[in-house]
Amino acid sequence: MKALVYNGPGKRSWHDVPDPVIQDPEDAIVRVDAVTICGTDLHILKGDVPTVEPGRILGHEAVGTITAVADGVRGVAVGDRVLISCITACGRCEYCRQGHYGQCLGGGGWILGHLIDGTQAEQVRVPFADRSVYKLPDNVSNEEAVLLADILPTSYEVGVLNGGVAPGDTVVIVGAGPIGLAALATSKLFTPARVVVVDAADSRRKAALDRGADLALGPDEDVEGAPATLHLEDLWIRNVTITTGLVDTFSTPRLLSMLAAGRLQLPGLITHRFGLDEMQDAYDVFADPATTGALKVALFGEEGF
Amino acid sequence: MKALVYNGPGKRSWHDVPDPVIQDPEDAIVRVDAVTICGTDLHILKGDVPTVEPGRILGHEAVGTITAVADGVRGVAVGDRVLISCITACGRCEYCRQGHYGQCLGGGGWILGHLIDGTQAEQVRVPFADRSVYKLPDNVSNEEAVLLADILPTSYEVGVLNGGVAPGDTVVIVGAGPIGLAALATSKLFTPARVVVVDAADSRRKAALDRGADLALGPDEDVEGAPATLHLEDLWIRNVTITTGLVDTFSTPRLLSMLAAGRLQLPGLITHRFGLDEMQDAYDVFADPATTGALKVALFGEEGF
Amino acid sequence: MKALVYNGPGKRSWHDVPDPVIQDPEDAIVRVDAVTICGTDLHILKGDVPTVEPGRILGHEAVGTITAVADGVRGVAVGDRVLISCITACGRCEYCRQGHYGQCLGGGGWILGHLIDGTQAEQVRVPFADRSVYKLPDNVSNEEAVLLADILPTSYEVGVLNGGVAPGDTVVIVGAGPIGLAALATSKLFTPARVVVVDAADSRRKAALDRGADLALGPDEDVEGAPATLHLEDLWIRNVTITTGLVDTFSTPRLLSMLAAGRLQLPGLITHRFGLDEMQDAYDVFADPATTGALKVALFGEEGF
Amino acid sequence: MKALVYNGPGKRSWHDVPDPVIQDPEDAIVRVDAVTICGTDLHILKGDVPTVEPGRILGHEAVGTITAVADGVRGVAVGDRVLISCITACGRCEYCRQGHYGQCLGGGGWILGHLIDGTQAEQVRVPFADRSVYKLPDNVSNEEAVLLADILPTSYEVGVLNGGVAPGDTVVIVGAGPIGLAALATSKLFTPARVVVVDAADSRRKAALDRGADLALGPDEDVEGAPATLHLEDLWIRNVTITTGLVDTFSTPRLLSMLAAGRLQLPGLITHRFGLDEMQDAYDVFADPATTGALKVALFGEEGF
Repeated sequence: MKALVYNGPGKRSWHDVPDPVIQDPEDAIVRVDAVTICGTDLHILKGDVPTVEPGRILGHEAVGTITAVADGVRGVAVGDRVLISCITACGRCEYCRQGHYGQCLGGGGWILGHLIDGTQAEQVRVPFADRSVYKLPDNVSNEEAVLLADILPTSYEVGVLNGGVAPGDTVVIVGAGPIGLAALATSKLFTPARVVVVDAADSRRKAALDRGADLALGPDEDVEGAPATLHLEDLWIRNVTITTGLVDTFSTPRLLSMLAAGRLQLPGLITHRFGLDEMQDAYDVFADPATTGALKVALFGEEGF
Repeated sequence: MKALVYNGPGKRSWHDVPDPVIQDPEDAIVRVDAVTICGTDLHILKGDVPTVEPGRILGHEAVGTITAVADGVRGVAVGDRVLISCITACGRCEYCRQGHYGQCLGGGGWILGHLIDGTQAEQVRVPFADRSVYKLPDNVSNEEAVLLADILPTSYEVGVLNGGVAPGDTVVIVGAGPIGLAALATSKLFTPARVVVVDAADSRRKAALDRGADLALGPDEDVEGAPATLHLEDLWIRNVTITTGLVDTFSTPRLLSMLAAGRLQLPGLITHRFGLDEMQDAYDVFADPATTGALKVALFGEEGF
Repeated sequence: MKALVYNGPGKRSWHDVPDPVIQDPEDAIVRVDAVTICGTDLHILKGDVPTVEPGRILGHEAVGTITAVADGVRGVAVGDRVLISCITACGRCEYCRQGHYGQCLGGGGWILGHLIDGTQAEQVRVPFADRSVYKLPDNVSNEEAVLLADILPTSYEVGVLNGGVAPGDTVVIVGAGPIGLAALATSKLFTPARVVVVDAADSRRKAALDRGADLALGPDEDVEGAPATLHLEDLWIRNVTITTGLVDTFSTPRLLSMLAAGRLQLPGLITHRFGLDEMQDAYDVFADPATTGALKVALFGEEGF
Repeated sequence: MKALVYNGPGKRSWHDVPDPVIQDPEDAIVRVDAVTICGTDLHILKGDVPTVEPGRILGHEAVGTITAVADGVRGVAVGDRVLISCITACGRCEYCRQGHYGQCLGGGGWILGHLIDGTQAEQVRVPFADRSVYKLPDNVSNEEAVLLADILPTSYEVGVLNGGVAPGDTVVIVGAGPIGLAALATSKLFTPARVVVVDAADSRRKAALDRGADLALGPDEDVEGAPATLHLEDLWIRNVTITTGLVDTFSTPRLLSMLAAGRLQLPGLITHRFGLDEMQDAYDVFADPATTGALKVALFGEEGF
């Protein structure tokens, strides 16, 4: 099959590699029907993520069709159309038992396109399939569903829920890229009084306003754009709390059912569409949003459109 | 002044009584501009609330204009247009210090129209004024504001927040009267997947559907209308939690700002309007909703319309 | 092997049955070294739990040694000394993904000694072994560990955590049997100001006082012993919350590590000890606590003492 | 009366000043019976807190006897022995209504010895007395009670509660001064599995171990003592949460009742005792703990011992 391979900092290629095969009783093999590129993939290509070794197939967001499952897989079957989540989970370790799947100690967590081969390929092996893929209802399209692989649960869990957004709050989102816009959409589930978005790019501020932001600020409006030092030694007296995190994807089933019920919408977030074999072009477009206006780019297999 | 007086079970009159006067350093006197009748007032009139003594002026929901304040009042002044909340609070006792104003042990809680004279009058004395009245912004009308005196914070705090409504939940509301419809509106602040309303009256089911309920069920649809015994000895294994409560009104400032910002709407909840001196007629209409279709009735002073 | 079999209401026998065998890729077979009887087993024998069919081996609390594991078991191996929890978990369903293992929809939950054969036997098959057994540290004895199978997590999760016990609280525990005494021990992890225990039996009130209860009340002290009707129609105004639940056992690893670290102690809770083949005698003693003074009875295999 | 006056950076004096008088309907005047010095007072003297103006009487922790109350004070009376808390509260503003008294916008918060004259004097005026002083039960000594003015609620609310300490946790406390040792005592209310204390001073590590720390580490044990930069750009993936805050003192009544009930103990925290007029000596001892071994120093009026 063809796949997008990381060949060390600055180098990527789309070329033939062996097809994935079942390696473990909980594996599934999935034909990739729709796949996206994440900002993290660009970081990997810059060499910022040293745990990714040359030769690795990238990608951790996709929708596909199951073509094989091992004996220990119970919840999905060959032929099922599924979301492939950025997080897999052993379901046994101390973290998994608490729902902290992103911190899995049993071989899961963020491994696709990181520690094992990923989804930017014609096929992908998904470990712990019962806890890593989600069967899709018919009324959710591939293009809608693929946003659930990472940016929707990430913005919802790490941004909105950890941030404790409540009705009537003022929410400020710094950065109106795909994650920022997903945070805008998911924060509005709690009816904040006002959502303020900050971004240096006119096009992204406009994208935020089009999706319901109440105010969009740029560098002209006295928001400092440079990296800022956080002076906790002064801020503590104002009861500042800082939360961070890697997504756990515990919210994925809930978000999927809300998407299916029409309670959550992200229209227009995918700005560019490609065929799978146009992977290199898609990377070029995604890597230069100032020129291309790209938010999220998606690639589709022949049966994925 | 004129006031609606409870004369014992089944008896009410609208007649002359002495004007209220300042009795305590934290009192305010308020001219009533808009006032409503609560289902609780009907219970009192039936004799169901023995702590209400004959001679008591009823009413615990109003909007008015401050005509006098005692020395210890800091936050409001003569001439301010204010919401009079159903709950007053000493601000000193153990419960008040925890925000449980409804359980105040220092002379507050639900006292208006209950343990002291209430708001169904031309004027009313409000104790602990700094924690019992709320200055109103110009863009919130008397008619909108008076719903914040009781039904909005009650449905939000006791129903929606205690009930832990979260995005994607299914919410069932039994009874589509004023409180039920306010619970419908405030539960939607959390974007539930589905709100189901149950009521025996066609008109109230329609009112619920008009305001965004996803499903409205009546006795015909196999919902038992009779009082039900709760079999906790069978239900425990399903992790049932039951929450109850008297409103604390800690959410009133937040709800008021959301109302002012257009984030919370309850159009059409007030179905009948009267002049203050039509109090008896208003009671008759409110007490017979099956005939009159009344949801909430409001009465306005000369300067209150 | 020998096992305690339920033969319909009122009938139990200890007799030969076939040895359990692996049926599923996630099964383990465990030799029972220590096992207890639960009040629930007495309910089953009375016929109160119709989902238990005649022919069923009872028991859902044990410590044992693994003698066989299927291919899909990763976390434990033959020879491991393990706690067998009352709750098993598929680890895949919506409830399991939220940590609500007791409500498992994928074949787990409370099934041992209920829907499948249980632990009151020389051997037992445990499904979903990775999420149903817990490897024991050397410094935790069988007798200490077996209390973690049910009563410690049940009292901690359903009583103490759901009840929101906090430092300085007053806690009232009705019933000073094994669960009540475990609730006493686990509530003290939060340093309540006062724990009051209510029981009709002198011996159980003494057991509670010996274990740190601040006050133990019986029927003589004006506590009504008869079943009580809960008048929610009067109690709501006092902000009453009622929580119920089946244990999920999410706390079992934490409680086990606290037991190993000496942070949690339940001395003297096991009042009677038997050999496994004295199962019928053990039931007789446990079923008549008024005469025998039994709190918890334990039975040990030859290598289990 | 005599008082300790801040005369600008590096300068303090104990000299005659006018007696305080009632200025507001919610004021109380309190005779100081016991008072302590806080590390914050040393910061003020260094000039680190520019909001403190020269001429200010310092001190925000004390126990005393009420000598006068204004008309609006309801909860305490002349003659009452009271704790004076470091935080006062208007009880009216948005923050106070949420229990965030430390952030009071109505004239309260941390004002004693900061924005108004403080407690290191023979008498002190306490604004908003009903929400700023706490009547003491007879069985709590002045020396015990004075620790409730600041370090106990600060360590409990900002450290233990905000930090979410739960049974079985590992807690690390950096700095074993008075606040650190109070955090040790209050974290143990939740039965952590292990409390590790880090301090460079042998005497303070010993003080921590004497009070139940499980491990006390110094610079020799590979703990870096130098200021550390927090690399959130690397730490985010491990779900790091940072909480900060100024104490609100909502927990003061609860902590006081636990102290009275013997559920909370801080023996030996006050290492040095002085008469009120030895204020300058007390500052010298407190400012040089490396030499004097001082933890907390207390000064007592003639009737305060």
